[in-house]
Amino acid sequence: MALNKKPVKGMKDILPEEMQIRDYAISVIKETYGKFGFTSIETPCAESIANLTSKQGGDNEKLLFKVLKRGEKLDVAGAASEEDVVDFGLRYDLTVPLVRYYSAHSAQLPSPFKALQIGNVWRADNPQRGRYRQFMQCDIDILGEASNLAEIELILATTTTLGKLGFKGFEIRINDRRLLKAMAAYSGFPEEAYDSVFITLDKMDKIGPEGVKTELLENGFGESCVERYLELYQGLEKAEDGVAYLADMLKGVAETSVTDNLREIIDSVQATKTAGFEMVFDATLVRGMSYYTGTIFEIAIPEFGGSCGGGGRYDAMVGKFTGKEVPACGFSIGFERIIMLLLENGFQIPDRPKKIACLVEKGVEGQALCDVIAKAQAMRETGSQVLVVRMNKNKKFQKEQLMAEGYAEFEEFYKEGLRN
Amino acid sequence: MALNKKPVKGMKDILPEEMQIRDYAISVIKETYGKFGFTSIETPCAESIANLTSKQGGDNEKLLFKVLKRGEKLDVAGAASEEDVVDFGLRYDLTVPLVRYYSAHSAQLPSPFKALQIGNVWRADNPQRGRYRQFMQCDIDILGEASNLAEIELILATTTTLGKLGFKGFEIRINDRRLLKAMAAYSGFPEEAYDSVFITLDKMDKIGPEGVKTELLENGFGESCVERYLELYQGLEKAEDGVAYLADMLKGVAETSVTDNLREIIDSVQATKTAGFEMVFDATLVRGMSYYTGTIFEIAIPEFGGSCGGGGRYDAMVGKFTGKEVPACGFSIGFERIIMLLLENGFQIPDRPKKIACLVEKGVEGQALCDVIAKAQAMRETGSQVLVVRMNKNKKFQKEQLMAEGYAEFEEFYKEGLRN
Repeated sequence: MALNKKPVKGMKDILPEEMQIRDYAISVIKETYGKFGFTSIETPCAESIANLTSKQGGDNEKLLFKVLKRGEKLDVAGAASEEDVVDFGLRYDLTVPLVRYYSAHSAQLPSPFKALQIGNVWRADNPQRGRYRQFMQCDIDILGEASNLAEIELILATTTTLGKLGFKGFEIRINDRRLLKAMAAYSGFPEEAYDSVFITLDKMDKIGPEGVKTELLENGFGESCVERYLELYQGLEKAEDGVAYLADMLKGVAETSVTDNLREIIDSVQATKTAGFEMVFDATLVRGMSYYTGTIFEIAIPEFGGSCGGGGRYDAMVGKFTGKEVPACGFSIGFERIIMLLLENGFQIPDRPKKIACLVEKGVEGQALCDVIAKAQAMRETGSQVLVVRMNKNKKFQKEQLMAEGYAEFEEFYKEGLRN
Repeated sequence: MALNKKPVKGMKDILPEEMQIRDYAISVIKETYGKFGFTSIETPCAESIANLTSKQGGDNEKLLFKVLKRGEKLDVAGAASEEDVVDFGLRYDLTVPLVRYYSAHSAQLPSPFKALQIGNVWRADNPQRGRYRQFMQCDIDILGEASNLAEIELILATTTTLGKLGFKGFEIRINDRRLLKAMAAYSGFPEEAYDSVFITLDKMDKIGPEGVKTELLENGFGESCVERYLELYQGLEKAEDGVAYLADMLKGVAETSVTDNLREIIDSVQATKTAGFEMVFDATLVRGMSYYTGTIFEIAIPEFGGSCGGGGRYDAMVGKFTGKEVPACGFSIGFERIIMLLLENGFQIPDRPKKIACLVEKGVEGQALCDVIAKAQAMRETGSQVLVVRMNKNKKFQKEQLMAEGYAEFEEFYKEGLRN
């Protein structure tokens, strides 16, 4: 038989050591988010092609894995294009499925609805180190809460979870799409070019104001707009309170409710946080997805260059499914990056059960074997993790290997009874 | 936009109530199996088409969901058949992926290797009530243990888990493929027809000895074989100890090691079990998959007609990937059936945190809002589940709904301070 030992291209097998950390992280996530009133939900891994190509997913829609029709519906020889042979695809994120789910079941769901989703998504990206074609996402969303209570709860829940996983000294950067637009309007950029301007602004972290200036000019924007923007930005950098500075500068361009809202989120989180992090207003934060309508935020962990998760408000998406707008706000943890950091930092899972190995000589059988197993069962009942295995000829090597797996205590059982 | 609210055909959204039970069951499964030394692993949801059509999966291979090639590799218009347009498929079980995983990573894995897998599988079956095209499987397997310590540990771990989920009065039925064959040989059935004979014997539960006789005769088997088989079966029914009876009757046809092995498994489990169930020797138990080479077993729960899980020994499968045989034995819980039974029985999750809802009047903002959130954070730290929501105009209705969700305590916060 021609069997392949390798996982399919770009996907990975998860070995026990990593899996223990993943299981632990998931249990902390479920427990902590649970304390905030988020309830787990699950949707199928597959969605209809129409939902996955509805322009909500941006570039991710280009990375779809599509599933072949089956039986009589499939006619490969007669097919002219992809549409003829596929009927659904693997989800590329958890947001589109959540909104579909909410649209289908809202009558049975509480309002506001606080959802927790932990699940795999698939993207046919070019495989790279640490980046796979199947990976886990972990999202919380609040549907039906128009006030900034949604943002505050999402940020507190997420940062409390990160704190419980041992992260500290990180930042939650926050901005608002409406402020981003107001700054562009104030500077005189044409409205139809905002998306292009934002792509450049998003690089401020990496290329600095000079780099941003060069790129904007190269992209054909007028020098006056670019100068006016950079002047605003430099004033902001110097300001003690960035939100207050912009509220003042953008009077008449941005609604004061936008800056008041940001102010309240930042202050409330700072005042009530339980983890070691800072809220940082970042007027150049963009977040890629076009569906965001208000606040946007992301996690920056110092050990890790890029973002370790993010989210924002997307008040218009439910309306696209149902015709009736429902306020919505979500926060996604970069689960795979978090796991990578935990593994790199040699994270130790707390409060693990004692690991005991029972080595049973070949020939221990019948009643003697029952006695061994009964003893193991009793130790399990009192909370220990107990492995019952046959003793190898090379017992020393076997014990060394078991010690490497974390077994710290051994019990040995011989044909002629206990021996030591 | 033409967006579909429904999940794709044959797959289902999981609502919060069911999801809570699923999450709880998974946590019990992981914890209990962990105590027995099983370690979680995960493989991708996709496997190469070659692995999924290697004849290990029996009829499940006909139910594959196949994934379309992408980019330059895909030429739909020029394709003549399915093979030209697909490169992998969604797994239909967790056994084939486990064996591939073990073949790829055995050098890094302990021996014996005790694996726990909980994951979705996909089968393009005709959707039926309670049967979906995506469903969760939960398997434990021991690779590298030739002795019946594997069977004993698998059965004890699985039954302990079922006991912790509140099941009692169930049966673990056990048989051995080699005994099944020996009974057929003793009766004089031709070896090439064993599979057909077993399909009929498997129905003994439902159609009884007379039905089995009729079907075997209809299928063209000689009356003498059929009579001889039924005589053996009826003797077995009357025997006080079925295993001893068959050991005696099949002398020279079945190795005594086969019956000794069954005897030891049954006795050891009976003597050391912690849950309320019985081990039952069932000489007509067949289990469908052709890869089983020795013991086979299944769970029969009285409230549920069919099997709620099963497994057995499959010592030849690893060898088909690697050329080197490795003894293997596994036990799969019928996860979806277990969940269905828990839901039907109104299962109550024990030791849930206290659920408290903070209702915050519109207009409570700034420092007053901080105070509310700080109070909620403090209650979460002491273990409560705390929901912070805006108070609706119809507060009475809102509280009724929250009570239906299990919120038993309420705190109300008003613009002018606490009011009651």
